[in-house]
Amino acid sequence: MDTQSAASFAELRRILADFPGPDQESATRAAEREGHLTKPTGALARLEEIASWLATWQGRHPAAVNHPRVAVFAGNHGVADLGVSAYPKEVTQQMVLNFQAGGAAINQLCKNADADLRVYEMCLDQPTKDFTQGPALSEEEAARAMAYGMICVEPGIDLLCVGEMGIANTTSASAIAAAMFGGAGADWAGPGTGIKGAQLTRKAEVIDQGLARHRARFNDGLEIMRCLGGHELAAIAGAVMAARIARVPVLLDGFASTAAASVLLKSHPGALDHCLVAHCSAEPGHRRLLTAIGKAPLLDLGMRLGEASGAALAIPIVRAAALCHSGMATFAEAGVSNKE
Amino acid sequence: MDTQSAASFAELRRILADFPGPDQESATRAAEREGHLTKPTGALARLEEIASWLATWQGRHPAAVNHPRVAVFAGNHGVADLGVSAYPKEVTQQMVLNFQAGGAAINQLCKNADADLRVYEMCLDQPTKDFTQGPALSEEEAARAMAYGMICVEPGIDLLCVGEMGIANTTSASAIAAAMFGGAGADWAGPGTGIKGAQLTRKAEVIDQGLARHRARFNDGLEIMRCLGGHELAAIAGAVMAARIARVPVLLDGFASTAAASVLLKSHPGALDHCLVAHCSAEPGHRRLLTAIGKAPLLDLGMRLGEASGAALAIPIVRAAALCHSGMATFAEAGVSNKE
Repeated sequence: MDTQSAASFAELRRILADFPGPDQESATRAAEREGHLTKPTGALARLEEIASWLATWQGRHPAAVNHPRVAVFAGNHGVADLGVSAYPKEVTQQMVLNFQAGGAAINQLCKNADADLRVYEMCLDQPTKDFTQGPALSEEEAARAMAYGMICVEPGIDLLCVGEMGIANTTSASAIAAAMFGGAGADWAGPGTGIKGAQLTRKAEVIDQGLARHRARFNDGLEIMRCLGGHELAAIAGAVMAARIARVPVLLDGFASTAAASVLLKSHPGALDHCLVAHCSAEPGHRRLLTAIGKAPLLDLGMRLGEASGAALAIPIVRAAALCHSGMATFAEAGVSNKE
Repeated sequence: MDTQSAASFAELRRILADFPGPDQESATRAAEREGHLTKPTGALARLEEIASWLATWQGRHPAAVNHPRVAVFAGNHGVADLGVSAYPKEVTQQMVLNFQAGGAAINQLCKNADADLRVYEMCLDQPTKDFTQGPALSEEEAARAMAYGMICVEPGIDLLCVGEMGIANTTSASAIAAAMFGGAGADWAGPGTGIKGAQLTRKAEVIDQGLARHRARFNDGLEIMRCLGGHELAAIAGAVMAARIARVPVLLDGFASTAAASVLLKSHPGALDHCLVAHCSAEPGHRRLLTAIGKAPLLDLGMRLGEASGAALAIPIVRAAALCHSGMATFAEAGVSNKE
């Protein structure tokens, strides 16, 4: 894929229209093998589903998770100046430096998962525009950010985790979710980094102002991203697209990542079939969003950090599913009596 | 600990009475450090709780998970002959051979978690007695099995996962749970390896017969184990005791493992404070049991395999908690602005 040529909405729409479907042959082979493995039928439950999903979207059987990548995109938001976050937007850059120095949670979680971490810093000195005053991004900026996100899907990767860092981006994500699935600011706004009371009310108002200003555009996912999104959120949507084409299954992280990816559903109802949601964030909008997109999380541990932390934490679960499916003996191989 | 001298109920009761408490100093040090790490307060939620729990029960700060061990105990049950399982009891031995050959789910899950696997085969040619006719074990047999279970806690281990293999042992576990926490056979009996209908009704009746026969003994946990338990279940209770003394935190696996460990609560209400429940089994009694003992599982993926599979799957979660706590930078170290 030539990501340069993808840097227009027209080209992005062509890519979305050409999304490959599930590999039914690999899915069939996974189902066939699963029935012979030395365990009662269905006893590994969600792990069996994951093994099937991996085969279906890697397009091979047996599937494997040998080279997982964690991609964290960082961007800044104009709405951060409206008092919607507990932290100033300088923290975005400071946390990028922390990622680079190995001191953040995501560094430890990648070490834990034996995953490759890449951090993509997206013009942090050029925040998006305040979406209450106009579109957050121009079409060119949004398309370029999506195309930039595609570069994280390099050859050899067999699982992609997407995450973000961006002060005020739960405000942007809440606005995207409301634009996609309905509801007002108060339905989607949550504490984010830890706001409450009057500041939380202010956050909901900011979202409502953005929704009111851009409502005419909400029949189109890319327009929703342009009007209400951010560089890092657009990049996540682009990464999810590139992963589909390259047959790399995706673990979505928390609220912001899931909201970012969800814009693709306007173009293609199956656009996120190659994605699992790794965890359910404590940010209350996430559970609502997961209901809206019909995805059950793998983990539910109350986390609300972003930076791909929930996705990275779930990598060993996904790898375990692949290992069980490919490594277990069949009843016949092991000489174990099967009731069937 | 001299496990030979532990091979009587009197000696086991002395060990239970001397259970060490939490290491408050390590807990305090964990709480102090946690507040300075580069994330919003509480954003890692359950991972923060796990890091504190590890420090509290390893008795050191920072805690670490470098040498996790998975111990699977296998035993056979007299009640297997009453038609309570989908499989014949020969499958216990066959599955032990499968563990030894590396072909079972637990082998793949230990590889995934970089954990050491030990399988303890407990006189498979001498099943327990049918508990509807008399106690499953003599006091000597039960005490010896508990003492045998203690040997899995070898020096250097810093996390212990306990699991089991034993055809018909969900019948035994259901009886133990009913004896400990009340209710009848039908309240605790579930499909186990996959039974239903008349066979499930039969399983509940077998449990009720065992409860009726031994009810006079239910004020004592060790007696409950002796009357209704099994070699592998007694060994799990012993392993959990040895881990407490050696300051090794424990991950309990599914329904059978949790029921086995729960008998210790009769002697000491805090006897399982050094244990987390790794996952909630699809075996319906497990959720009820977790409510009874007041423990929230780490994972809830619909699994119902036993053989320590849920516990081994959760090791990377626990290790991640330790790595985040010890490896993350503080706000001061990373030069990140903190709102506080």
